[in-house]
Amino acid sequence: MTDTFSRMSDEQSVLEANAAFYGAFEALDADAMAAVWSNTSADVCIHPGWDLLIGERQVQESWSMIFANTSYLRFEASDVRVSVAEDMATVSCIENIFSVIEGHTVHSRMACTNVFRRSVQPGGSWEMVVHHASPIAAGQTVVRMSDDDGGMN
Amino acid sequence: MTDTFSRMSDEQSVLEANAAFYGAFEALDADAMAAVWSNTSADVCIHPGWDLLIGERQVQESWSMIFANTSYLRFEASDVRVSVAEDMATVSCIENIFSVIEGHTVHSRMACTNVFRRSVQPGGSWEMVVHHASPIAAGQTVVRMSDDDGGMN
Repeated sequence: MTDTFSRMSDEQSVLEANAAFYGAFEALDADAMAAVWSNTSADVCIHPGWDLLIGERQVQESWSMIFANTSYLRFEASDVRVSVAEDMATVSCIENIFSVIEGHTVHSRMACTNVFRRSVQPGGSWEMVVHHASPIAAGQTVVRMSDDDGGMN
Repeated sequence: MTDTFSRMSDEQSVLEANAAFYGAFEALDADAMAAVWSNTSADVCIHPGWDLLIGERQVQESWSMIFANTSYLRFEASDVRVSVAEDMATVSCIENIFSVIEGHTVHSRMACTNVFRRSVQPGGSWEMVVHHASPIAAGQTVVRMSDDDGGMN
């Protein structure tokens, strides 16, 4: 029973770390984003269509650059799968991303892998070490904000 | 000293599991590929541009389909980063893929995250639970401070 409980509790805390990542992303907040990561040479980040970024400096610089060039983003995760081991965990999901481009809400879908490591501090929190997001081909849907029939495609 | 040794040895065995994955891929061998994975509901696979595939059946069916439609592929990994925890590990790398299309060798680059879990069996091997590969947009390179001719592609 203890094992089952602690596993459920671990899964919950991994999902909280994952939610903190998307919270920082939506807030376009570089400090909150840095707080999510391990900030070590182990950090690896792959933005959609980008090359590997390796280590704290490259990763955090990329977030600052993205935040400086983004005005609005909202995330809804679907197909979430969590796999928790002793001190590392992965979250796989679809990122449903809503942004506003020229007055239209644009919905895009990214396939995503997030990996967290448990901090070595006692009662350690889960720190992001990998974020990998990639576009899904032909996965883009434009949702019209004004009037109408809602002709999604 | 023992810790350092066992960590190096773990890293080595994770890299061997990673090499077995690319060996099965190059051999276009569905049985060898299945032997690399955990073959549980935890398995998640994201091929370049694809949606999430979840669980043993979806994942292994995708490999059979890909192998049936592929005649030649060779992989060379670069920028390999390994992060090993107690019973889970990630390998991040660039996959340099060489294929032959209409008599020409074509080189493409994918950004890749592979995650392995240590099998619960005594002396357990590392089993793949996540493979995520994504295309790198043409012209995208790691953020560099200074500009140079860098006509890589």
